[in-house]
Amino acid sequence: MLNHLLTTNELKVEEIYQILTEAQHFADGMKWSPEVQMFSANLFFEASTRTKSSFEVAERRLGLKVIPFEVQTSSVQKGETLYDTVKTLESIGVNTVVIRHGQDRYFDELVGKINIPIINGGDGCGHHPTQSLLDLLTIYQEFGTFTGLKIAIIGDIRHSRVARSNADTLTRLGAEVIFSGPIEWFDHHSLSAARFRPIDEAIVEADVVMLLRVQHERHQKKGSYTAADYHSQFGLTLEREKMMKPDSIIMHPAPVNRNVEISDSLVECKRSRIFKQMENGVFVRMAVLKRSLESLKGVYGNETTYSERQLHSI
Amino acid sequence: MLNHLLTTNELKVEEIYQILTEAQHFADGMKWSPEVQMFSANLFFEASTRTKSSFEVAERRLGLKVIPFEVQTSSVQKGETLYDTVKTLESIGVNTVVIRHGQDRYFDELVGKINIPIINGGDGCGHHPTQSLLDLLTIYQEFGTFTGLKIAIIGDIRHSRVARSNADTLTRLGAEVIFSGPIEWFDHHSLSAARFRPIDEAIVEADVVMLLRVQHERHQKKGSYTAADYHSQFGLTLEREKMMKPDSIIMHPAPVNRNVEISDSLVECKRSRIFKQMENGVFVRMAVLKRSLESLKGVYGNETTYSERQLHSI
Amino acid sequence: MLNHLLTTNELKVEEIYQILTEAQHFADGMKWSPEVQMFSANLFFEASTRTKSSFEVAERRLGLKVIPFEVQTSSVQKGETLYDTVKTLESIGVNTVVIRHGQDRYFDELVGKINIPIINGGDGCGHHPTQSLLDLLTIYQEFGTFTGLKIAIIGDIRHSRVARSNADTLTRLGAEVIFSGPIEWFDHHSLSAARFRPIDEAIVEADVVMLLRVQHERHQKKGSYTAADYHSQFGLTLEREKMMKPDSIIMHPAPVNRNVEISDSLVECKRSRIFKQMENGVFVRMAVLKRSLESLKGVYGNETTYSERQLHSI
Repeated sequence: MLNHLLTTNELKVEEIYQILTEAQHFADGMKWSPEVQMFSANLFFEASTRTKSSFEVAERRLGLKVIPFEVQTSSVQKGETLYDTVKTLESIGVNTVVIRHGQDRYFDELVGKINIPIINGGDGCGHHPTQSLLDLLTIYQEFGTFTGLKIAIIGDIRHSRVARSNADTLTRLGAEVIFSGPIEWFDHHSLSAARFRPIDEAIVEADVVMLLRVQHERHQKKGSYTAADYHSQFGLTLEREKMMKPDSIIMHPAPVNRNVEISDSLVECKRSRIFKQMENGVFVRMAVLKRSLESLKGVYGNETTYSERQLHSI
Repeated sequence: MLNHLLTTNELKVEEIYQILTEAQHFADGMKWSPEVQMFSANLFFEASTRTKSSFEVAERRLGLKVIPFEVQTSSVQKGETLYDTVKTLESIGVNTVVIRHGQDRYFDELVGKINIPIINGGDGCGHHPTQSLLDLLTIYQEFGTFTGLKIAIIGDIRHSRVARSNADTLTRLGAEVIFSGPIEWFDHHSLSAARFRPIDEAIVEADVVMLLRVQHERHQKKGSYTAADYHSQFGLTLEREKMMKPDSIIMHPAPVNRNVEISDSLVECKRSRIFKQMENGVFVRMAVLKRSLESLKGVYGNETTYSERQLHSI
Repeated sequence: MLNHLLTTNELKVEEIYQILTEAQHFADGMKWSPEVQMFSANLFFEASTRTKSSFEVAERRLGLKVIPFEVQTSSVQKGETLYDTVKTLESIGVNTVVIRHGQDRYFDELVGKINIPIINGGDGCGHHPTQSLLDLLTIYQEFGTFTGLKIAIIGDIRHSRVARSNADTLTRLGAEVIFSGPIEWFDHHSLSAARFRPIDEAIVEADVVMLLRVQHERHQKKGSYTAADYHSQFGLTLEREKMMKPDSIIMHPAPVNRNVEISDSLVECKRSRIFKQMENGVFVRMAVLKRSLESLKGVYGNETTYSERQLHSI
């Protein structure tokens, strides 16, 4: 039974805690690599710096050999299907693939037919499970629990790959999620996942202020704001930051539009965990890759160093 | 004396058997790597998933360090010649280059002037020797001989990189080659290499049905077929597959146009060796790279594991 | 205190000699690699074969893991700033970055805010310090000194990344620099760095004839020459080569426009050090990377082999 990672919704609460614990071990210095030489490939059909680079680092830290794949110089240009591309990589000996693709649930046509684990690096407006998991790790490191936390997710929930799945998952883990942002960007479906609050109330209540990126490319016609308008009405301004609770933190999946979602000078302020999230991304991806590779028949790994410190209270 | 690999025509029969034997050893688990750190680079001036990825895996299995090269971000954009590009890579310490290039016999301007072995990953409509060799390995694994086999090559022989050189080589090895496909796609030259048979006769006679990819980009004006027309007239339909001899096999260099050259449901049928060909591609490329590197002065390798099983009857 | 490498102007004479000595050690077979796994990334916002490949080889020779970065598939496409891109790479564990960027002094916005060393692979029309250093190493290997040498730099000084900084540095090291080329391509500023001589006088005087690439893309309107005109008026023709002093050498940063800056048949003539420069580029970059990595807190390396031969007279 292959351990793909497709969505966080499909992960049981105990599986989430297992991945977070393993990720924290990696953060604490644990090393692991498969006993035999293994290969991975990263198929990014959409632009990415952070996610792709983060997987590239994670893979090399696990001792994997990474086979380069660039969409624009691949046979996808000759009309090859995603299935045939992945099956080809499987045939030549690639042991796991990470895929980012613009189509929602692109993986439905692969699962059950491909014999290597698939790790979803983002699909359409749907899911981005390693982003969700790194958000969870960052919150857990801060508070040692999810129970009773208030998480405000602010921005374009409808087009966000992570907002709804984060909301679902955080709720399952015992947190309370609040949505905020331009009300006209919300539809019935997105509002069903959490209650809506105006930004100035959301900011005051939240333990975690999770800002979403304004995707300019999706808002060019109606309901669009200038950068300055968005910032003053829905952004984390210097004034709003002062209204935040003591010990509350700021998160953002990045890339940040400085002075739109968040004031330039807050990006690296004391409350900000934005670059911490990126650090954690590598550890979460190492844990997810290890989990996938271990689900392949006959794969064993060497844990060569081990730190005793564990994720608190698990 | 450098062992380039430029065309299969230049390989003697005994050299072909040597490469296939070595490839089979790799398939059986042999490991080999050069004693000192060595570098390769893959210069693909045309799109490719399979060939490029296959070389990337083969190189890493031999312990080579692969220097990335992307045409669109190279000095080729500033008008640098192929010779100067390859000479540059030689100067900075690259020990072998794999090249795919749109120009027929691009390597003629390099051989004799470059001091590192060149492996042809496909030139113009000319040659694609590692594809030929992986076809040969796949056939040999199946039948244990080439003598007396009937091989039907079906499709656009004239524009195929492998059809004519496969036909020459298979004939030299003792097999009989039959051509089929749209007769108007054949010219005098291509017909001189083998006899032509209508598809329904070719299919019935053949031990190996080798389908060629329809290169849509080359047939947009005259002599073009719709996908459905091509499939019903010249494709491997479900009906035609039933006419094939017992124990005969299906091959295709891929990427496949599903329901054009071959019915979608036959791509992974019991007779199909299409994904087996891709597997074999890695072993053939390992053998070819080893052969080239060993021709460099002072290069020795370590054979660290060895399987006793040999390619039958060689 | 991080050892960036931004410009040669900022390097003291003793630092230049330190880098050249270390580079010569690498040329003589010294090996060095950091004790722990370290990561680099090469951010090339402009086309390059030589410089990028040379860094790729140098990094692997030092045992670094190289994280691939392609501008056209990165979040730079979503408008991410250079600072945020580099900070991201720092956050995910990259230990040093090499950057080539079209903007003059792009690094001014990074230094002091980024906690990993930056190695300038070329900025705008400004600097290209590893090119300068490899030029210096090549000259030093030839003559064992800089004192009293006459170096003629010929071509488009104004648009050259290396000409002016080479001129400054060579002068500081005790050499005399002469400029030549189309007088209308010189401005007051470039002429202040060295005296100008007509080409036929410069060639006769020089110990080193350093040709610059004609950057066709920058000379399409005024002051432009046909290739043949440039060659006969300002290029190194067969006739001019015969006028050169005994033991004088020819250099060019490449890519060469054959039969423009230099006659085709002189590119690999006995006097030419053009491909030697490329070889030296790898050793210089190894030295520069080692210097940068050693400036990171807690980084130690293993020198596993060592050649006794030293750069003469240092």
